[in-house]
Amino acid sequence: MMTGKNYIGNLQSAKGDHTFKTFNPELNKENDAVFTEASSEEIREAVNLASEAFKEYSTISGIKKATFLNTIADEILALDDTLIQMYCSETGLPEGRAKGERGRTVGQLRSFATLVAEGSWVEATIDTAQPNREPMPKLDLRKMNIALGPVVVFGASNFPLAYSTAGGDTAAALAAGCPVIVKSHPMHAGTGELVASAIIKAAEKTGMPNGVFSNLNSSGIEVGQELVAHSKVKAVGFTGSIKGGRALLDIAAKREEPIPVFAEMGSINPVVILPKALDNRNEEIAKTYAGSITLGVGQFCTNPGLILGIKSDSLSVFINHLSQEIMDINPSCMLHPNIKKGYDANKDKVVAQAKVSITANYESDVQNNYAQQAVVSVDGKSFLENPTLHLEVFGPFSMVVECANKEELETIIANLEGQLTGTIISDNDEITNFQKVIAAIQNRVGRIIFNGVPTGVEVCESMVHGGPYPASTDSRFSAVGITSIKRWVRPFSYQNWPNNLLPKELQNENPLEIFRSVDGARVKK
Amino acid sequence: MMTGKNYIGNLQSAKGDHTFKTFNPELNKENDAVFTEASSEEIREAVNLASEAFKEYSTISGIKKATFLNTIADEILALDDTLIQMYCSETGLPEGRAKGERGRTVGQLRSFATLVAEGSWVEATIDTAQPNREPMPKLDLRKMNIALGPVVVFGASNFPLAYSTAGGDTAAALAAGCPVIVKSHPMHAGTGELVASAIIKAAEKTGMPNGVFSNLNSSGIEVGQELVAHSKVKAVGFTGSIKGGRALLDIAAKREEPIPVFAEMGSINPVVILPKALDNRNEEIAKTYAGSITLGVGQFCTNPGLILGIKSDSLSVFINHLSQEIMDINPSCMLHPNIKKGYDANKDKVVAQAKVSITANYESDVQNNYAQQAVVSVDGKSFLENPTLHLEVFGPFSMVVECANKEELETIIANLEGQLTGTIISDNDEITNFQKVIAAIQNRVGRIIFNGVPTGVEVCESMVHGGPYPASTDSRFSAVGITSIKRWVRPFSYQNWPNNLLPKELQNENPLEIFRSVDGARVKK
Repeated sequence: MMTGKNYIGNLQSAKGDHTFKTFNPELNKENDAVFTEASSEEIREAVNLASEAFKEYSTISGIKKATFLNTIADEILALDDTLIQMYCSETGLPEGRAKGERGRTVGQLRSFATLVAEGSWVEATIDTAQPNREPMPKLDLRKMNIALGPVVVFGASNFPLAYSTAGGDTAAALAAGCPVIVKSHPMHAGTGELVASAIIKAAEKTGMPNGVFSNLNSSGIEVGQELVAHSKVKAVGFTGSIKGGRALLDIAAKREEPIPVFAEMGSINPVVILPKALDNRNEEIAKTYAGSITLGVGQFCTNPGLILGIKSDSLSVFINHLSQEIMDINPSCMLHPNIKKGYDANKDKVVAQAKVSITANYESDVQNNYAQQAVVSVDGKSFLENPTLHLEVFGPFSMVVECANKEELETIIANLEGQLTGTIISDNDEITNFQKVIAAIQNRVGRIIFNGVPTGVEVCESMVHGGPYPASTDSRFSAVGITSIKRWVRPFSYQNWPNNLLPKELQNENPLEIFRSVDGARVKK
Repeated sequence: MMTGKNYIGNLQSAKGDHTFKTFNPELNKENDAVFTEASSEEIREAVNLASEAFKEYSTISGIKKATFLNTIADEILALDDTLIQMYCSETGLPEGRAKGERGRTVGQLRSFATLVAEGSWVEATIDTAQPNREPMPKLDLRKMNIALGPVVVFGASNFPLAYSTAGGDTAAALAAGCPVIVKSHPMHAGTGELVASAIIKAAEKTGMPNGVFSNLNSSGIEVGQELVAHSKVKAVGFTGSIKGGRALLDIAAKREEPIPVFAEMGSINPVVILPKALDNRNEEIAKTYAGSITLGVGQFCTNPGLILGIKSDSLSVFINHLSQEIMDINPSCMLHPNIKKGYDANKDKVVAQAKVSITANYESDVQNNYAQQAVVSVDGKSFLENPTLHLEVFGPFSMVVECANKEELETIIANLEGQLTGTIISDNDEITNFQKVIAAIQNRVGRIIFNGVPTGVEVCESMVHGGPYPASTDSRFSAVGITSIKRWVRPFSYQNWPNNLLPKELQNENPLEIFRSVDGARVKK
């Protein structure tokens, strides 16, 4: 079943010279399948096909797009154990996680299917003509969202299903009416090929134009660079490191026609624990956070990498509790030797900084590619002055910062880089004494959490997964939830256009029965 | 009344060394007032004040923001003839235009006031908790739009009121909750200072924080560059040339923290005249377009600079009619000698290209700074091959392209740069034979017009003023209409947040009685 080839539209193709294999970190050995990197010719072919497919795909009905998306979900489920086994062999993650992530992926596809089948998401607005208006007649104007064009999606290392081949970015772009070219993540190219085969099957079964989807293999950065620079690519979705996302953003910004790049990148997800909460729930909080820090071997973008408190005996006790709790957790396998290498290198770098104390470090022997979790602490002044301490250590690691006082806590938060999330742990009433802290944190994050953990990103309309740079490259959009479709559309306006030639969404009769804004009133007629 | 100073928040300041004057193009002489360019110190002061003001201003109620916006409108009207005279003396435009543009400016301010006073624009969505959901409980999540931070607005040369100091960008940003720093346009610095004084008066009367608005003078590009590069500036609005807009976009993209730039730039606004329309309404169309091309001395971003038809006797007749009609129009004064110089230079450049025929060129003597209108024609092949012919000639100029056939027409449209508008002139039924032409044009523009002219941009919800690059730097937003507020906001999500600490927009009781999406249903309760 596994061919190692690219999907250039509906056809498999392997014209390139470079090959690579994926790696089983649990068994610490390469997997068998050989993947062929896409050649420049194949890249151009995929983009040209997508650009041609766009003409048809951007105008098909919401119902047809919904059928396509639901069929992708069906075909992914039909891969059954083959997919789950492939996923586990390429990630070191357990079967439960694989199945959970598959559920999330299928759920995302179906929620976008529901959205576009219903149809109101296009935000149709109609301003009818007022021919007798003085001094100038008002003309009929009608507006709706339309698709941007071919979108390139970069698979994420840490979500082989939910944020890769048929993940959130792809589902949102296909729902919007944009063909998608996936730059498959090299760490799980096999999982990627299986999911791509499901998408291609679904496209063929539901009569989608050839080129609506392509899947390109690559082990390096060149394929992605070429894709983002191609003039027929109109937008980019990326989940990964700040370095990787910024490099793509820079390429896109230098194009003759700059294009939007939505990159969801690094975050250390600050958690502020207020004094009374520390006094009253010290052990409980430590236990909860030991779990959150090590969840998924710390390989979540919402991993709590920074815990802020005001220096006190309670905070010292908390550091001890957290350190003990985290030492009690069994180490687990990371996604890839390179991820493990990066984790160790970043951890070592942070630990080597002045004034950093290691309060927990799992030093016992572990299997190859297993992460040794750690907790460190540092004083507020040192944290404020040393940007290296703000580094994301991708893995089961967290740093507790002991701030001298409330003012230092505020200053530290105000000077943080942009973050996906911020969390306040508070006894119910004490939060009202920390309004400036709350305001400062709100200004730095996309989502704020009360008495919880940042890990666990619910897929729903009210979710914001994004935030000020470098949490994401454009804080005006979310990468998770149905509103993430807005990244791939633009408003388009028809002036005085004949009713029978308008898209159904804007015709007088409202044949699709969607919610529209008509002369300022939201109606379904 | 005129001081020539900058407004750094509520205080007037002139610490810089460079001064300049504005110019009366109608009288062909400098105006008296001396303006002092903002110094680097003043720029930093304005940004720091804006950043401080943001803390308070971003959280004040919609009602208070509405009062501020309406008071700005009142104060602008209170400037009365002083403003109108100043406007005319700095632009060469007639009083009627000045009053019309003032009406548009005041109307925009009031429409944003209505929007934020009502409040539903924040797109509040609530997903309530499901504590018993399996396998994981669902947490309470609530989302709304919040302001981005201080916004820099560049005044436009061609709209001293409606797209400058208190114009669309400023009104939208202030409505969103963002302090604004205006980089005043040097051609109408006096008009800018008067309007700035109205905004400052309104800010003081309504108790807005100092720094919510600043107005900086400059005759060169340095002040703007410094503003866009400043780390505390969070977004940029610009209306002007492709060169100017792209330069700012590039600065913003190279920042450590890249920020969104919405630049509305060049457009030649293609108009396609279909054969039957040409046969049946030749003279009428020519007359209408002679008017549209010369409206406002051709100094509108929606000026029809490109007319496309299929080679025929009717098209030749049309070119003659258009040329005659345009020669019958009296030349008028351009905004500034530099605008006139640019017009002449670009016209000369285009006219000098191979295969371009001049069919109308007003060669009689005109007053200083008056534009001599012109029409040229060229064959489709030459147009397709020569990018210089795609240049925007800012002024009363248009080029008619005689395409060999329908296919060449399609190819030309498909290869056009992005445009604000596209227009189809058609006899009612013939448009159905040109579906590919329509599809191609739709892919290149932000607004499509049936049997009309692109000039005249209605301010309403269904208007899109923007389009694929280089019509604008981000086609996902409009620069005109109430939805332009979306450029300056980001979604923000509260997880499990105590009801009494939520912003009113998201509290259970819906105290503001706004429309919200609650568990997927749009309700006002």
